Amino acid sequence: MQTMNAKEIEEVLTRETLGCLACCDNNVPYIIPMAFAYKNGILYGQTTEGRKTEILRKNPAVCFQITQTEFSTWKSVLIEGKYEEFDFDKPFAPDVADAVGKLHARLKAVQDLVGISAPITSDGKPKPLTINGKKTALFRIVAGNISGRQGGLSDS
Amino acid sequence: MQTMNAKEIEEVLTRETLGCLACCDNNVPYIIPMAFAYKNGILYGQTTEGRKTEILRKNPAVCFQITQTEFSTWKSVLIEGKYEEFDFDKPFAPDVADAVGKLHARLKAVQDLVGISAPITSDGKPKPLTINGKKTALFRIVAGNISGRQGGLSDS
Repeated sequence: MQTMNAKEIEEVLTRETLGCLACCDNNVPYIIPMAFAYKNGILYGQTTEGRKTEILRKNPAVCFQITQTEFSTWKSVLIEGKYEEFDFDKPFAPDVADAVGKLHARLKAVQDLVGISAPITSDGKPKPLTINGKKTALFRIVAGNISGRQGGLSDS
Repeated sequence: MQTMNAKEIEEVLTRETLGCLACCDNNVPYIIPMAFAYKNGILYGQTTEGRKTEILRKNPAVCFQITQTEFSTWKSVLIEGKYEEFDFDKPFAPDVADAVGKLHARLKAVQDLVGISAPITSDGKPKPLTINGKKTALFRIVAGNISGRQGGLSDS
């Protein structure tokens, strides 16, 4: 097993679409499989409101894990950081709007898994969506610590 | 998106080898990719001692998530339960020994990812291993709640 360097970690974050978000509800963990987009050290995600957004608004400490397996190798990236929700009523800075556009393109491919119906149009001021009567929340994860490990899968 | 029934959930738990274990350290989440074996409602795992075992011994509340993707469909199983460590000095009941044998066979294939060097021999009283100077902990996750969702990946 080897530690990954910053460039190797960035490659996984740029290429992968799905990860696992963990949060804590009064010291009890909860995991949500989630699509994400990565740009300049920040992860972007969108989710329907429900148990997860309730927990995250109370306690924004999150851990995000991405596994990449490929033939006989694997890479695992772990991001420990903070959940921050965007306000749909405010215009987004250009790099945020760009990342959100990328996220929305990805969400189209995994809309059923993450519970969000695409297409979602994105401009400088995206609008909130209501899916099956549920609002969605758009958020970013600001990383406090990013680490990665990689190795080979034994075929024995 | 559909809720999975007990038989569909059991099938994922029996077939898959890797999942994500989340725990909480003073209300801050941590995720560990982990190999597991499932038998009769219980997940079995083994890990090297370190930050994760320290956290889990203080706070045994865990959440375990398994994603199965296959062509254009996905299944996600979530187990909310409790971490319980086995004592290597005591003989194991036959069904536990059987599950541990299955776990050890699986660990051989993913030894590098989970940080445990195989082969690990298993009989009625498995022995603790020391890997690179680190002891290992053998544990089970007793499920309080098991749920599953499934759906299709959009190709748009």
